[in-house]
Amino acid sequence: MNAKIGIVTISDRASGGVYEDLSGPAIRAAIQDYLRSPWEEVYRLIPDEQPIIEATLRLLCDEDGCDLVLTTGGTGPARRDVTPEATAAVCDKVLDGFGEQMRAVSLQFVPTAILSRQIAGIRGQSLIINLPGKPKSIRECLDAVFPAVPYCVDLIGGAFMETREEVIKAFRPKG
Amino acid sequence: MNAKIGIVTISDRASGGVYEDLSGPAIRAAIQDYLRSPWEEVYRLIPDEQPIIEATLRLLCDEDGCDLVLTTGGTGPARRDVTPEATAAVCDKVLDGFGEQMRAVSLQFVPTAILSRQIAGIRGQSLIINLPGKPKSIRECLDAVFPAVPYCVDLIGGAFMETREEVIKAFRPKG
Amino acid sequence: MNAKIGIVTISDRASGGVYEDLSGPAIRAAIQDYLRSPWEEVYRLIPDEQPIIEATLRLLCDEDGCDLVLTTGGTGPARRDVTPEATAAVCDKVLDGFGEQMRAVSLQFVPTAILSRQIAGIRGQSLIINLPGKPKSIRECLDAVFPAVPYCVDLIGGAFMETREEVIKAFRPKG
Repeated sequence: MNAKIGIVTISDRASGGVYEDLSGPAIRAAIQDYLRSPWEEVYRLIPDEQPIIEATLRLLCDEDGCDLVLTTGGTGPARRDVTPEATAAVCDKVLDGFGEQMRAVSLQFVPTAILSRQIAGIRGQSLIINLPGKPKSIRECLDAVFPAVPYCVDLIGGAFMETREEVIKAFRPKG
Repeated sequence: MNAKIGIVTISDRASGGVYEDLSGPAIRAAIQDYLRSPWEEVYRLIPDEQPIIEATLRLLCDEDGCDLVLTTGGTGPARRDVTPEATAAVCDKVLDGFGEQMRAVSLQFVPTAILSRQIAGIRGQSLIINLPGKPKSIRECLDAVFPAVPYCVDLIGGAFMETREEVIKAFRPKG
Repeated sequence: MNAKIGIVTISDRASGGVYEDLSGPAIRAAIQDYLRSPWEEVYRLIPDEQPIIEATLRLLCDEDGCDLVLTTGGTGPARRDVTPEATAAVCDKVLDGFGEQMRAVSLQFVPTAILSRQIAGIRGQSLIINLPGKPKSIRECLDAVFPAVPYCVDLIGGAFMETREEVIKAFRPKG
């Protein structure tokens, strides 16, 4: 069975046509690099509205059956940044280690990494991960956490993903 | 007064007799190594059921008077993993620094450390710490946080613990 | 417009006159070192009572219009330590990265850094940051997070702060 991956760009301006979405494509490019097993994509471009974000995440997990949902945008401290709130609201479990590690990695590049509130969590059989808005930061964060993603998806009953080992090495503990 | 330490193995399979509990004994061995002051143990082996975990923690803290309760198992992202939820539900305060540091230390060994949701918290005069399920990871995590445990137990009014300094150095700030 | 900075010492003993508040002045000295743009201070010295802490934070943010509120004290695991609870109760958003980074930095000095529950968050147009009680730890923590503070205050619509670059380098991402 193909893995199904949701890519959700959350941005008032990109969804309003003020500028082009470069963040969603940056996620797509990363996954194309990482995975050698087949996968298909469900892409959404939505504004920074909490009810819309929640509804989108629910649909991607429950109806589309995504094994993994990657969001970009809306994780900062500004009033319109509500992606983590929406994610927490739809998740059964939050995995604090993802946010911690993504911030720790981003901190090596910019001191403002501590302003990012990005989280990850489980909804049913889907893993949802918030990524930053900037394409460069997206790749830094994904590179840091992706080695743990295929095993996490195994644990929640999702599709089996195989990575290109020369690009990123998925880790599955023995036993 | 002897310190009282609860050791709680949380595992459907070990509690169901499918395999032997190796994790509880790993915690016991670590504490025997660490402490030179006298202590006694209260041991429990229970399944991954949130109400049972909560009731067990409450009893160990409120009735048995444990200064420290160490759990193992049930901290992952799978559906049956509910130890952190049960721990949070019975704690007055959660101490995020424990989970952060245990994950940071485990990350030096395996990238899947970010999947662990282990927490620590205070209930009354007891410190509760979630540890991973695997004996090897238990010791790595305990080694990392135990230097702060005796002082924490002092602060909440528990028993005075003295460590074997050649094994682990408890830190108590002056003044 | 001058930046307005609240300094709140939270301590039963200092507020009761048992000893002199050295922590509030340590915060003031740090800010005097950091900022070259003009700022004014609102200082409060209060006991470890959650309703008083909450009311003080609300007033500093909503009435006094503080861009930044720095608290000291009350972040430990003891029963009277309730500063993080009060802060979380008045904040719209919590920024986990601050607490994570402050603990990571303090851990380089003392293993008991994991006992600190300090958080930071946004209330309206104010950024609130909990600092430890000890003057030496206050400076270590502030040095670690302050580079991200002026940009965070920009993002929530507060005053523009300029730092003395030879002391601390504020970071504002381009674009």
